[in-house]
Formats: sequence, C-alpha cells, structure tokens
Amino acid sequence: MTLPYGIFSTDRSGPRVGVRLNDHILDLSAVGRLGFFDDLVVDLTVFDQPVLNPLIELGKPAHQTVRQRLIELLTNSDKPLNAFVDQVLVPAATATLHLPVRIGDYTDFYASEEHARNVGRMFRPQAEPLLPNWKHLPVAYHGRASSIVLSGTPIKRPSGQFLGPDQQPVFGPTQALDFELELGIVIGKPSKLGEPVPVDEAESHVFGLVLFNDWSARDIQRWEYQPLGPFLGKNFASSVSPWVVPLEAFDPFRTDGPRQDPTPLPYLQATGRSHFDIELEVALQTSDQQELILSRTNSRYLYWSVAQLIAHHTVNGCNLNVGDLLATGTISGPTADQCGSLLELSGNGSRPVSLPDGSTRSFLHDGDTVILRGWAGRKQVDFGDVRGTIVS
Amino acid sequence: MTLPYGIFSTDRSGPRVGVRLNDHILDLSAVGRLGFFDDLVVDLTVFDQPVLNPLIELGKPAHQTVRQRLIELLTNSDKPLNAFVDQVLVPAATATLHLPVRIGDYTDFYASEEHARNVGRMFRPQAEPLLPNWKHLPVAYHGRASSIVLSGTPIKRPSGQFLGPDQQPVFGPTQALDFELELGIVIGKPSKLGEPVPVDEAESHVFGLVLFNDWSARDIQRWEYQPLGPFLGKNFASSVSPWVVPLEAFDPFRTDGPRQDPTPLPYLQATGRSHFDIELEVALQTSDQQELILSRTNSRYLYWSVAQLIAHHTVNGCNLNVGDLLATGTISGPTADQCGSLLELSGNGSRPVSLPDGSTRSFLHDGDTVILRGWAGRKQVDFGDVRGTIVS
Repeated sequence: MTLPYGIFSTDRSGPRVGVRLNDHILDLSAVGRLGFFDDLVVDLTVFDQPVLNPLIELGKPAHQTVRQRLIELLTNSDKPLNAFVDQVLVPAATATLHLPVRIGDYTDFYASEEHARNVGRMFRPQAEPLLPNWKHLPVAYHGRASSIVLSGTPIKRPSGQFLGPDQQPVFGPTQALDFELELGIVIGKPSKLGEPVPVDEAESHVFGLVLFNDWSARDIQRWEYQPLGPFLGKNFASSVSPWVVPLEAFDPFRTDGPRQDPTPLPYLQATGRSHFDIELEVALQTSDQQELILSRTNSRYLYWSVAQLIAHHTVNGCNLNVGDLLATGTISGPTADQCGSLLELSGNGSRPVSLPDGSTRSFLHDGDTVILRGWAGRKQVDFGDVRGTIVS
Repeated sequence: MTLPYGIFSTDRSGPRVGVRLNDHILDLSAVGRLGFFDDLVVDLTVFDQPVLNPLIELGKPAHQTVRQRLIELLTNSDKPLNAFVDQVLVPAATATLHLPVRIGDYTDFYASEEHARNVGRMFRPQAEPLLPNWKHLPVAYHGRASSIVLSGTPIKRPSGQFLGPDQQPVFGPTQALDFELELGIVIGKPSKLGEPVPVDEAESHVFGLVLFNDWSARDIQRWEYQPLGPFLGKNFASSVSPWVVPLEAFDPFRTDGPRQDPTPLPYLQATGRSHFDIELEVALQTSDQQELILSRTNSRYLYWSVAQLIAHHTVNGCNLNVGDLLATGTISGPTADQCGSLLELSGNGSRPVSLPDGSTRSFLHDGDTVILRGWAGRKQVDFGDVRGTIVS
C-alpha cells in the first residue's frame, strides 16, 4: 500500500495531515481523535498541523508504528473504521491540498548518466559527453526553496536575459521553457554540522519520496550559468506532488543500480540493493485537452543511489534538516523515448516533438500542461501526479 | 549611530532582541516593558523572540519609528534611560549572542569585478578574465542556509574529493581552505512569486546588512564545480556577524558605483547613489595570538549595487522572503592588497603570504583565526567583527 502523507483542508476544517486512499483522503487528525492511535507512543497534535514537519520529526520508529496501524485498520477483516466513515474519510474532490512540507534547503543533483550524456552531447559536441568528475561524485547544486509550489499551481512563463539571434543579450519571456522529470527525497532525520552521514546509514535520514518537476528556462540558463551554475533559469518555480510516499512503501521494489565503473571512493560504497524500480511518465496536455505521453522511464536508471546522494552531500560536514529536499536531477533512460526533459526529447529543438493536434513542440507553449506520473509494480505504490500549466 | 540589531541571552534571561552600544547591549525587550515604545504602533512581543524575523516582518515604517525612538532616547539631554540602566543595559561580555536571523534561502553573488578578474586570470590564463555574461548580469548561485553559523563558531576543516598529484581523485581534509570577505543583505520585505521587484524599489526590500565569511575549500570546489557550480566546496560553513546594521544607518555613506559599460538592460538601470562606502578589513590571527592585516578594501568597489542584485534576482518572478540572505560574493579592490580571499592574495599559492611569526600561508592552517571587520566613516557605523577559527 502507498499510504502517502499529505496536507489537506476542507470547507469545514483547516489544514491537517491526511493519507490518500484512491479517491478519498483518510483524515489522520480524526482517526487520532477517535482513539485509534491511543496505544501508540505518538503525539497526536502532529496530525493537526499545516505541514508534515512535526510528524516527520517524530522519527522513523513512530512513522513505522503509524503506518503499521493504518495497514491494520484498512486490511483487518473487522473493518474497524467502517463505523466512522463519515468522520474519517473525505472525498478527495472536495478537499484542498497544500504544500506538504515546509522545505528548508533544496538541493538538485545530476544523478542520471543518460541525462548528463544527452546534455553533454548537445552542448559540447566535440568533447567527451561526461565531464571528468561525473563518475567520481554525484554532481549537484543548491536550488531555490521559496519557489517550490504545489502540483496544480500555474507556472508563469519567466522573463530574463538570454542571447538573441545576433548573440547580444536581450530581455524577454523565455523562448525555451522546459520541464524536468525528477524524484525528490524528503529528509526525515537531521544530521549535525561537521558530521558526515555514512552511506549505509543514509536511508535512515529519508522520510519519503515525492515527484518533482524542476521547470527550466534553457535560454536564460545557457547565458547565465558560467561559471557558478543555474540560477534564474531554474528558480522561478519547481512543482512538487501533494503526496509524500514513505520510503518503506518502496521496499518491495528495490533493485540493483547500474554497475559503477570506476568504483567510487569508499565513502560512496554502499551494500545492498540501493535503487528503486519506479515507473515514471511524462504527459503533455495541450489546451484542447488532448494528451500525449512524451516519455516513459524508470528511476532504476539513475547512476547514483539515494544513499550515495546523502553520503556525498554530508561528507564535508554539511548538515541536513528535517524537511530538506534533495532532488535527483532529470531522470532519463537509455532510449530516445525515455528522456526526462523536452530539451533532450526535441534534441534542443532540432527534432520538434509532434502532437496529436498537428502542432509541434521544441519547448513548452503557453496553455500546455505537463503531467508527471510515477508508480511501482502494478500501481501498488502510486505517487499520483504532478501537474503544471504554462501561463503567459 | 549604528544601532545594529542582534539576539542575545544572559544567565537570567532567554534569547531576545538587543541593540549594540559599544561594550553594552541595550535590551529592547526591557525598554519596551518600561513603556518607552508605548506610543509607537509596534507589537512589543517582537522584542522577546529568539530571532529577528518577527521584528523584521513589522516592516520598514515600524523599523524607522523604533530606530528614531532609540536615537531620541540615547541622545536626548534628559537621558531618559539613565534611571533604568540596570534594567536595560547588559555588559556585552556577559551576554551570549545567537544567530540573529532565521535564514530562509541564501544566494551568493559574484558582484566584484576585481574578484572575478583575479579568479579568471588564475583559472583561465589564456582567456579573457571576465566571461561574456559578467558585465550584463550579476552572476549568482544558490548556497546552503543550514550551515550558516554565528561569528565565533569554530570551523571544522572539511573533507572531500579533490584531484591528487597524479590528477586522480583522492579523499581527505581540504588542502586549500580559504575565506571570502563579503557583505550580506538581509531581506526585510517579501516579494510575490511571479512579480519582479523594480530596481528603484529594490532597497525597500532590505532590512539591513551583515558581514559574511563564505568559507571555501578551493580543491574540492575546483574538482566538483563543472557544470553546475559550487557545492561541497562551500556548503560546510559560512560565518555571519551577530549584528545586523539597518540599511538606513548607511545613508550618510552613499556613493556612486563604478561606471557600468556596457549599459545594462533597462531592468538593471537604477537612479541615485547606489553604492555604500564601507571600509572592510581581513585579519589573520595565528595560534600564538599574533595578528596580521591581510587585506583592506571597500564595498564601493562592487560593480553591481544592492538594488541591482535584488532586481536581477526577482526579474524572472523568483520570490523573496523575510530573512533571506543575499551575499555580494568576495569583495576585492583594484590593488593586490585589497583582495577578499587568500586564493587571490597568495596567487593560488604561488606567492604565499608571510606572517609575523615567520611562517607563510597559501591557504589556512588549523588554529588560524580569520577576522573580518567593517565600518563606515570614522566608525560612526560599525559592524563589529566576524571571527572563525579553523579546527581539524
């Protein structure tokens, strides 16, 4: 079962913690008030908060206890919640969802080899696509937390500087608006400043995963990013799924990652099955509501694992806080239809993507809606989707 | 008068807002309780908080009212506070200082032309020192907020990956630990997502300035930073001054910035005297307590102004929150003794700096203390200092 955590409100009640059950939301604040958590050592006030952070701060043993209790309540043949359906179940269609986590710092990695190769081939056609550091460490940069928005929030086309046709900088709305299909890691346990997290303990610092769209303005990014990395080309918005799926839900879907050659330095050497078999999909819906699947890929293609991202991030003593978000970077697979960005799918505009309505896309148009979806197995675990519509 | 705001506590009382007056701290919580702010429309509870954020959120008119009242109380010939000295004045030596602001997002710019030229000459000796974008926009990247620490916090030498003598990556303590002399801008008024801040309104979003040391591990940075910018080479620690100086304190010290050629795009064209004449100094104290001034420079050498940094940061719709920190990047002046980093002062180790004890420094040694100082005029406005001692 997915049992993802989110924050919802209704006409009758303020923001609180819920768990998504298909078309309904289970109100954990109400479940708690009815006494179903009374024998657990859990502070019930965490369910009555406008963000998940206080729940996350309870720690993994508490999360596992709550999750186990929910599984019992939902699968027990006695159906103990049946007598309280009106009090604990809210139709999802009648609820308003909120940004689930108060995000502290946000870090974006570059952990997909195919994505890094695709970008390298486009921007440095004469050179080796991967830079020399890429297979030795998970390349990353810090992103902007303030502009992370909930799925469904309209995405305003950003303006900025980029090079015009005569190679002089011009100002205007980006002409190269793109999406990036990513997974996000929500940190569940802090680490102390100056104390690296060993790679084999790294997953104990993860609360759960989200789907993440790191919107990008490629023309702005290309002009600004040397030598200090992406800034205004990225920080106008990123969209996050309303539901945070506990890492435990993915345990049945663990898999081995790609073989790492060269062998990374010892602090990045993990034991066990480090990757997750999560199906990912990007759809484009045009303003006439027609939908085209642009890409299907899988998180098992990531070169660097969740544990390696955390071990690297902290190896210099950088501290993590509850609610920090680490994103994987764009996830692309080995074939051309497995790319996680339009930049790659359209070959930087050289092979525009054809849509059912006869139009083409090198980059996103106003009115386009990008929908990311993710699930494991036969949707036993399901992120739901992350949507964003481009507005001028 | 400086009248800088900070957070302090004593044996008898918890963290609260104070204003530094030479060797004493004026306890604004106590001043408020005594009724001296009663006729101001100010919520007195903001003075009794462990961070300045609630005070900052009151807005500029409130800050100006409080500042004006403090000036009256301290300069009025009646000396109205004299009867209450024991209640309102705390000897600074008996107080514990705290990180003054709960920092949201932290952005680091690269706004000093001399610094950018010095770094360019060292790392791209065959090429034009400034990259093509540099004079068209204030280059910047997002940094790490979680590891910003108060002045005085020991700085643990970080470990990480860098290239060894045979150009293969090795892991170990950085061999190239450096400081960066910067000013930080504390955001005092939020801006909305999707709404750029016009350059001539930008300063209304500033609460005050701090001194800032953006510690850097040059070997880690050099190996990791392509293509997405600095990460572990920077995010192990940055040190901030305990005192935030209101921007208004620098009004008498306004000056013109350098002529900008080419003329920037219209959204970066400001009117008025955009720069500040703030003297800056870096001292190195070795473990035998001997001190050497390494550098003296001035914030008027910055190419891009505070207003331009904010206008650029928000032109794509990126939103600012109260408590965000924007740092200028290393401030260097036109002469060799005006450099804001040891990298520049030592020519990346080619001209080690000689110290009074006969030793030399290409980069920082364990036990070294770096002290940044800043003031305007004849210290009518004074930041105090920012210190950090390197520990292994």
